[in-house]
Amino acid sequence: MEKEIILQGGCMKTCDFPDSPSSARLMMRNGVWQGITTGLVAGYAQANLVILPKTFAYDFLLFAQRNPKPCPLLEVTDVGNPYLKMIASNADARTDLPLYRIYRNGKLESEVLNITEYWQNDFVAFFLGCSFSFEWALIEAGVPMRHIEASRNVSMYTTNIQTNSAGVFKGPLVVSMRPIPYDMVTKAVNITSRFPRVHGAPIHIGYPEQIGITDIQHPEFGDPPVIKKNDVPVFWACGVTPQAVAITSNIEFIITHAPGYMFITDIKNVDLAIF
Amino acid sequence: MEKEIILQGGCMKTCDFPDSPSSARLMMRNGVWQGITTGLVAGYAQANLVILPKTFAYDFLLFAQRNPKPCPLLEVTDVGNPYLKMIASNADARTDLPLYRIYRNGKLESEVLNITEYWQNDFVAFFLGCSFSFEWALIEAGVPMRHIEASRNVSMYTTNIQTNSAGVFKGPLVVSMRPIPYDMVTKAVNITSRFPRVHGAPIHIGYPEQIGITDIQHPEFGDPPVIKKNDVPVFWACGVTPQAVAITSNIEFIITHAPGYMFITDIKNVDLAIF
Repeated sequence: MEKEIILQGGCMKTCDFPDSPSSARLMMRNGVWQGITTGLVAGYAQANLVILPKTFAYDFLLFAQRNPKPCPLLEVTDVGNPYLKMIASNADARTDLPLYRIYRNGKLESEVLNITEYWQNDFVAFFLGCSFSFEWALIEAGVPMRHIEASRNVSMYTTNIQTNSAGVFKGPLVVSMRPIPYDMVTKAVNITSRFPRVHGAPIHIGYPEQIGITDIQHPEFGDPPVIKKNDVPVFWACGVTPQAVAITSNIEFIITHAPGYMFITDIKNVDLAIF
Repeated sequence: MEKEIILQGGCMKTCDFPDSPSSARLMMRNGVWQGITTGLVAGYAQANLVILPKTFAYDFLLFAQRNPKPCPLLEVTDVGNPYLKMIASNADARTDLPLYRIYRNGKLESEVLNITEYWQNDFVAFFLGCSFSFEWALIEAGVPMRHIEASRNVSMYTTNIQTNSAGVFKGPLVVSMRPIPYDMVTKAVNITSRFPRVHGAPIHIGYPEQIGITDIQHPEFGDPPVIKKNDVPVFWACGVTPQAVAITSNIEFIITHAPGYMFITDIKNVDLAIF
């Protein structure tokens, strides 16, 4: 591909865009790509990352089993082993994302380009499916994504719906909201239902107050929404849920990806619809 | 419902058939119903049971995460707590199945009506979805189930496909085979694809030898198949896989349901298609 200059984030100097997931991961590993991953290597699924000590891994795995819609687990690494087996080949959880966040006792300590020096032999890395994948499917099907059109982040809200707790992990369900033209709502339900590995069908359609959202214009996470005439607010379970639950659980040491700086898998979005 | 006499298994004396999952569980808890559960409380999902000490629960949960098609987890109980929260209310894993199997070091020790005296405070109960649920959906859609028509058990085979191992749990994928009329194969694929929580879409269609099955008339588990003219053999991941893998893992103590003596959930089969 042609050389491009990324002004905000992205490539450190003038460099090529990666043309495959493995070349993207290599650029991140070598510190050449330090930017956000939105739109990078189009067509391939991206994943959220949560790394926890083994002591908490069972409860977190159980939390995901009990809450599959907000926690669509794509891969869980073996204890102490940073290499992936399922969703990417020759991939290293310590180096292959552009930016990581280190949390100690629930507080953000730092953002780092790799976590090689932080890795412990009791660490387990959890990779969770990301709504980028089903947004791709919606856009392919002609359903407009208002936040993408407006170059904003999706709007996310804490609801009054409690997740099913597991050990130390408990808390409310966080949802993302996408305004959908009223004559495309059933299409959006049908399409996202085919993607149970990336949050699946909506959890609510139409009335934010019924799930405890009082002010749609002031989301807890992301940007305020762009809602056009005849749009209906549609709510999906959001991957921020397990990350928020993990961070607020007072665990001494957690590592996550930095928001927007995701892991790029070898799995095509379209293949996430196959079960 | 009217009183009926169950000659083989079933009710111990002349008794009513249960008319709800909770009344069925109560009859089992009180030892009134000691028979197989095939066809009992029609329309409700039944579940397989595997009980393991906590030491092995993390690896088993991870095995299920890595092999969702053979291991569709419906519920995992809290450590030491025999009561269910998700798929049934007022249900007790120690008493609410008609018949249990006790395994020590991989060998079947006994079959018992309840496991109250065997229960340990480090036990975790895993409930796994059962193919009865998608067979119900296939029959509703007019796809004939040859083994049910012939009052046989489904045919099951060990394949040359390896599961994704997790800790001590490893082994080959076991599949069930249903002969499907050739003009209904795509229908069968579409219907079972809607049930990812009970094994989902087929893993193979048409050529048993391609997955290491050399003699279709001699299954490892269940009964020989009835294959009619113009039937195509269709293979689904089977819930025998995790049970076989657990039993052969040389774990000192495992409890399972006895084959055919399942747990009856409060979830309707039709609701397993909703995600």
